[in-house]
Amino acid sequence: MLIVMEKNATPQQIDAVSKMVEKRGYEARPIPGGDRVSICVLRNKGAVDTASFIGMAGVKDLIPVTRPYKLVSRESQSEDTVIQVGDVAIGNGHQTLIAGPCAIEGEAQALTIAAKVKAAGAHMFRGGAFKPRTSPYSFQGLGVEGLKILAKVRNDIGLPVVTEVMDLDTFDVVEEYADIIQIGTRNMQNFSLLRRAGRSHRPVMLKRGMAATIDEWLMAAEYIMEGGNTQVILCERGVRTFVHHSRNTLDLSAVPYVQKESHLPIIIDPSHAAGRRDQVIPLARASAAVGAHGLMVEVHHQPDQALSDGAQSLFPDQFEKLCQQVRHISDLF
Amino acid sequence: MLIVMEKNATPQQIDAVSKMVEKRGYEARPIPGGDRVSICVLRNKGAVDTASFIGMAGVKDLIPVTRPYKLVSRESQSEDTVIQVGDVAIGNGHQTLIAGPCAIEGEAQALTIAAKVKAAGAHMFRGGAFKPRTSPYSFQGLGVEGLKILAKVRNDIGLPVVTEVMDLDTFDVVEEYADIIQIGTRNMQNFSLLRRAGRSHRPVMLKRGMAATIDEWLMAAEYIMEGGNTQVILCERGVRTFVHHSRNTLDLSAVPYVQKESHLPIIIDPSHAAGRRDQVIPLARASAAVGAHGLMVEVHHQPDQALSDGAQSLFPDQFEKLCQQVRHISDLF
Amino acid sequence: MLIVMEKNATPQQIDAVSKMVEKRGYEARPIPGGDRVSICVLRNKGAVDTASFIGMAGVKDLIPVTRPYKLVSRESQSEDTVIQVGDVAIGNGHQTLIAGPCAIEGEAQALTIAAKVKAAGAHMFRGGAFKPRTSPYSFQGLGVEGLKILAKVRNDIGLPVVTEVMDLDTFDVVEEYADIIQIGTRNMQNFSLLRRAGRSHRPVMLKRGMAATIDEWLMAAEYIMEGGNTQVILCERGVRTFVHHSRNTLDLSAVPYVQKESHLPIIIDPSHAAGRRDQVIPLARASAAVGAHGLMVEVHHQPDQALSDGAQSLFPDQFEKLCQQVRHISDLF
Amino acid sequence: MLIVMEKNATPQQIDAVSKMVEKRGYEARPIPGGDRVSICVLRNKGAVDTASFIGMAGVKDLIPVTRPYKLVSRESQSEDTVIQVGDVAIGNGHQTLIAGPCAIEGEAQALTIAAKVKAAGAHMFRGGAFKPRTSPYSFQGLGVEGLKILAKVRNDIGLPVVTEVMDLDTFDVVEEYADIIQIGTRNMQNFSLLRRAGRSHRPVMLKRGMAATIDEWLMAAEYIMEGGNTQVILCERGVRTFVHHSRNTLDLSAVPYVQKESHLPIIIDPSHAAGRRDQVIPLARASAAVGAHGLMVEVHHQPDQALSDGAQSLFPDQFEKLCQQVRHISDLF
Repeated sequence: MLIVMEKNATPQQIDAVSKMVEKRGYEARPIPGGDRVSICVLRNKGAVDTASFIGMAGVKDLIPVTRPYKLVSRESQSEDTVIQVGDVAIGNGHQTLIAGPCAIEGEAQALTIAAKVKAAGAHMFRGGAFKPRTSPYSFQGLGVEGLKILAKVRNDIGLPVVTEVMDLDTFDVVEEYADIIQIGTRNMQNFSLLRRAGRSHRPVMLKRGMAATIDEWLMAAEYIMEGGNTQVILCERGVRTFVHHSRNTLDLSAVPYVQKESHLPIIIDPSHAAGRRDQVIPLARASAAVGAHGLMVEVHHQPDQALSDGAQSLFPDQFEKLCQQVRHISDLF
Repeated sequence: MLIVMEKNATPQQIDAVSKMVEKRGYEARPIPGGDRVSICVLRNKGAVDTASFIGMAGVKDLIPVTRPYKLVSRESQSEDTVIQVGDVAIGNGHQTLIAGPCAIEGEAQALTIAAKVKAAGAHMFRGGAFKPRTSPYSFQGLGVEGLKILAKVRNDIGLPVVTEVMDLDTFDVVEEYADIIQIGTRNMQNFSLLRRAGRSHRPVMLKRGMAATIDEWLMAAEYIMEGGNTQVILCERGVRTFVHHSRNTLDLSAVPYVQKESHLPIIIDPSHAAGRRDQVIPLARASAAVGAHGLMVEVHHQPDQALSDGAQSLFPDQFEKLCQQVRHISDLF
Repeated sequence: MLIVMEKNATPQQIDAVSKMVEKRGYEARPIPGGDRVSICVLRNKGAVDTASFIGMAGVKDLIPVTRPYKLVSRESQSEDTVIQVGDVAIGNGHQTLIAGPCAIEGEAQALTIAAKVKAAGAHMFRGGAFKPRTSPYSFQGLGVEGLKILAKVRNDIGLPVVTEVMDLDTFDVVEEYADIIQIGTRNMQNFSLLRRAGRSHRPVMLKRGMAATIDEWLMAAEYIMEGGNTQVILCERGVRTFVHHSRNTLDLSAVPYVQKESHLPIIIDPSHAAGRRDQVIPLARASAAVGAHGLMVEVHHQPDQALSDGAQSLFPDQFEKLCQQVRHISDLF
Repeated sequence: MLIVMEKNATPQQIDAVSKMVEKRGYEARPIPGGDRVSICVLRNKGAVDTASFIGMAGVKDLIPVTRPYKLVSRESQSEDTVIQVGDVAIGNGHQTLIAGPCAIEGEAQALTIAAKVKAAGAHMFRGGAFKPRTSPYSFQGLGVEGLKILAKVRNDIGLPVVTEVMDLDTFDVVEEYADIIQIGTRNMQNFSLLRRAGRSHRPVMLKRGMAATIDEWLMAAEYIMEGGNTQVILCERGVRTFVHHSRNTLDLSAVPYVQKESHLPIIIDPSHAAGRRDQVIPLARASAAVGAHGLMVEVHHQPDQALSDGAQSLFPDQFEKLCQQVRHISDLF
């Protein structure tokens, strides 16, 4: 941390701040600049808490230097993490396509869509059994019955399955059925859930919170890794901005930034970013072109009958077109 | 809902949309405007799902009309909800002051601060036993030991206590000790937690999510009320914007808007909005002046020793000044 | 417009609103819904001003239906506008590459960079002669001398030139030298400048404001078209959000949305969106993949010597790589 | 500036960065930390351009330390600026109330409203003669005729007048008639206009841009002061966020922050922040309570007839109530 002093800070004030730095167990190194002094804080392990300094006389600014995350950092592991789920790999040059309905609505629906997305080129199947819904009056998912349908999809169609976990009470049963456990946007900083995920043997797909900085997102991943689970996949799904021509604003610069800062794979969910079908294919192409490690896309054979998020679900033939276009782009690089 | 058709939509397209409206169980009322037709959807109970219509030929726009919430709505209950905790009332003209440290760090700390904030004018005590922390390496709270200290504060000092619940596993024990159960910003859309809170006999303080619209916030309160718990207090604590001279941007227009839309009490947390001590008192005055039903403020007798959020904690004498100023303003109106 | 009445609005209130609608010269069509009445406003030309209704007794909400723009609308012109500048076309399937330094710093600098970007594949040259700078102490551009250097670039290197106009006083001289006149982000709603641009015979590149909705951006283009100049190119360059790992957040869903709403060409400036060199090439690929009509990119042969925005300027060999990758993607579709 | 090196940066890389610092004319001071080296840049006058360093091998981060503004800074002038317009003072403990219609629509309208707001307690009159409008089809103001009406208001009613200037062409005539010249939100970074305002002998009211940081806003004020005009009033009017229950989000923490950073007076425009009448009085109270030096409020005697922004205009009796409440609050502190 760098402590910037006021221009007119007195030697006594500078000395008091230096003493506080040392009282906290760090080393203080004052830097006499042109018109003000700054004090470098050294010998800290991890980020320095600013609280001790923020109200001290003569202190103008506190500037953090150290990154708060460790295990997720590219500095702690230089080679890309690649996550293997059966025959499917995620990360480091693979382009992994995950597709399926927002919610599992029944066996016929799930099997129909799974067969279609597999034929189109999907590597994994997605579908919610426990659904986080903004309204208590909306369809909340089939629960354990939905998980069993997912197991049938894996068995009959041959696709590994991704599904969301919502709480501690249902974590064990989700873990039993899912190949990848998804932690949703609204739970990105549900720290109890993250700790539980850290003790899981399943890979975890961690969606970015609606207003999360990359630092906060990587710190959420750090919770999981700190618990011992190194298999974390990041999923960008758009952030909330003033914009309203799409449901969220897809933040594609997150991809090169995360790839520089972290070794974890990062995929994109263009469906939730767009919130409307006609933007999903263009955004999917952009996601492949920016260098993401994969895509997660909502597909429904009868979107107008879907019990949730039908407006953003692709028809199976649209998804087939998406796969072709994305493959063409991936093949270029 | 209003379905706006393209200017050049054909009679067949208009007819197909009307038929879909009726297939969904609603009534379709086409409105032939100057240069385009719109179709009003009638006889719906609750919000109409847009999915069925968004991809149909000739459809330009879907405009929601119905508000999604019911029980929290001023339309369903015209008089203000007032929540009584012992001798303390929250809502409808009361100005309730809640103060205490971010986290309970020990018995001496809690009792010292509680005595001071009570002397200054606080009606309730706040303090975290289970702490949601961005980093897994930060102090996570004393847990049940912290809850017991809160009970001692209530007993010895005579202030009801507010404390946060983080998950289903610890809900029962928090419910046992707390007078008001707080659901934090990062859990505002933790729907499992909301459902559990709906079955609680304790009042619930629901903090607004960092990027939550008022609709989403009221829908989260609806989850709690739908479960049978009518004692919900809303707490605005700043939203995330591009601004960085404060930690969050306090959205004070939420107060008159919520008071118009809902009968629930709304209080303000200026400490988390500001993130820095020197803005807390001005924002507290503004909160009282805008008409909020109360304030929740972080106070610590030794902020530079605090284990979390010391930078935004007031000194006890600053809190005393805050109480005086806020009372003067409340007395005016 | 749709006027939504309160549930308990009286017949007298509904009647009063209807009368006000008719007093304004429109037709009122009340729609008796399940539990509330809404009133459709018909026969309006253009958007209805909400002011007359917003305070009336019994009125709950005013919902705009009509889009405010006309001339820029896809509904008023279904085929794509293509803008021709010498041999270079912008719009409808072309992928136009515009490159050059942020600011013209001297003849040698401009000619060197222009030769390099032409060799790499650029179709046009960009460079600022009049520079909008956040600080009055920063380099403000060479002014008319810069424009003369641009003319020399066009003449010697054979690339049409794009340069920014900042005010009415210098519009004539910029118009004399530029092939395309750029209106910058900070001037997107400088309506006097837009009106002057509407009387120009030069094509205008209109950058999106930092916090402009698409509606506002298209309305700014409408100002230019309303003045008689139909040659408008839209340029997305990122919007301001809470995110700080890039300077702005590139809003790529603007591309499919604008292409649906308007017939005007839309290009992307990944350099200003990123604000840092290492994100420019990935975002450029994404821009081509999403379907933009072109790119405008900052290139400097000595970025560390650049007088402005060097941190985001590509080296010429990086720009060459960008051109190759973008061409490969464009060739696919 | 602080240059943070990668953990594994080599001595050669550190040396190369230090040499570049010195080549730029500064002093480099390497700080050997626990697990990485940082390099302090010293002897710089004003902010250091990051461009030279951002791409260098081994460089992880560049952290600005120096504030970019000088003349507006509290560090350059410790006592508050107070601006005197006739008998009216703005700044340092005064609570200045400015009121009037959005636009001057005619002599009778202006005189009627001016008489009413004066009676209610306003110190100055506001009204637009040149109106920046989002749509080219909306009422654009009466122009010079409107300025003449403002002169009549000053003469007949005895209130100094504030009115907006939109461009260089009309600056002289606005300057001739106005007591305070307003630069609007959309022109906050119209640097040509700011430079012209810097040569004016009139006080300038500079509204904050819709997505401007405080630094950018103060830098815009710096443009005016750098030109020689020291009479600048800052006006906060809400920023654009994801929120849509008010037109903009009023950023009241800007008041204590600006008052700490700068000596310039800061007032609040609650009308444009709210965009709806029913939030204006609560936000005005909050503005007075937070410590702003004044308020600018839209008032119209017939809001439903107003040619612009009627939805947010108070009735005169509402404004009278506002004045009373604001005075009560101001009297407290």
